[in-house]
Amino acid sequence: METPTLYAYYRSSCSWRVRTTLNWKRIDYETIPISLIKDEQKTPEYSSLNPLQVVPTLKIDGVSLTQSIAILEYLEETRPEKPLLPRDPIKRALVRSLVQAIASDTQPVTNLRVVKYAGEERRDEWLNYWMTYAFQRIEVQLATTAGDYCVGNEVTLADVCLVPQVYNANRVNVDMSKFPTIQRINNKCLELDAFKKAHPHRQIDCPDELKEN
Amino acid sequence: METPTLYAYYRSSCSWRVRTTLNWKRIDYETIPISLIKDEQKTPEYSSLNPLQVVPTLKIDGVSLTQSIAILEYLEETRPEKPLLPRDPIKRALVRSLVQAIASDTQPVTNLRVVKYAGEERRDEWLNYWMTYAFQRIEVQLATTAGDYCVGNEVTLADVCLVPQVYNANRVNVDMSKFPTIQRINNKCLELDAFKKAHPHRQIDCPDELKEN
Repeated sequence: METPTLYAYYRSSCSWRVRTTLNWKRIDYETIPISLIKDEQKTPEYSSLNPLQVVPTLKIDGVSLTQSIAILEYLEETRPEKPLLPRDPIKRALVRSLVQAIASDTQPVTNLRVVKYAGEERRDEWLNYWMTYAFQRIEVQLATTAGDYCVGNEVTLADVCLVPQVYNANRVNVDMSKFPTIQRINNKCLELDAFKKAHPHRQIDCPDELKEN
Repeated sequence: METPTLYAYYRSSCSWRVRTTLNWKRIDYETIPISLIKDEQKTPEYSSLNPLQVVPTLKIDGVSLTQSIAILEYLEETRPEKPLLPRDPIKRALVRSLVQAIASDTQPVTNLRVVKYAGEERRDEWLNYWMTYAFQRIEVQLATTAGDYCVGNEVTLADVCLVPQVYNANRVNVDMSKFPTIQRINNKCLELDAFKKAHPHRQIDCPDELKEN
């Protein structure tokens, strides 16, 4: 079987979600960096792989898959070892609710193209406002679902989505002391190899001044 | 078994997604309107059902489920008759990619609270810009997946998500003639009872001047 190829940007939280999941499931993969700063997601070559012109794209099993959450569900369905969804349908719904609270209600409002269009002068205020808004609600939801991780004591797709969002929040100085549950879960996840290896600062396209090993 | 209760707002596209799916799967339900205009999603009573303070919430099987996409997946898992996801994992991924292209990349950027924060004076331009942007990319993606519907010739969750987004686009005069595939699929879906009955103008909280029967 061919090694899967991930087209990703080091700082893209959607790319980080897929990296963590591939690592967690011990799926070897190669990375091809797509620079969002240089608008490489809009080249004809990349657009033919990903008509939506976003990162990531995962080439796997002979196809190009797009949209991080669709990719996570695909990996879960085709590589069920080391599951990232519980078996119980109600618990699965709790996990997916948190996934969407981040992937739909938080990240898209704070991505690069939306911030640009909202006005560069509003950048930090805009990002801080929306991430704080989202974390306030997610913190309340976690009070009813969290154990060691977002839902109970096993790592799930909710944790996979939460960690990159916390990284983004820290970048714009969101006051994380208001969100003790989110912080605790984030720190616990970052002790795990799958999350650590997926960290933006350990990617090949990370600028030298941020790079860690 | 108790009749499921849907807490919804007639014009919320996320509510419409759940209504269509319940109708499609022939699940009887009751509606409790939550007015987003009156901020009823923030009352303590509703917040206790839905800590994220968004619509919809579905009370079903003894629990309150939140986030429309998590609800659709739950209904698909627990009520597999009249499926809205194909069996093949790759086709499921194609459906879910379109679902997320709408549910993550389009709708959240254009919802009420984001538009308010972007500035009321930018309302129409903001909405038109983002929906046009998204439909341009989705139209290209559909060229590779569509048959009668978004993915092949069966109705899927992608169609369930597309139709409410087209309604929103029409409200702000997006030039839909640029998106012939989206228009064709939208019209075909709106011939189906499950979509028609779920239409905002047929909901109990729809104002009289818009109401249809």
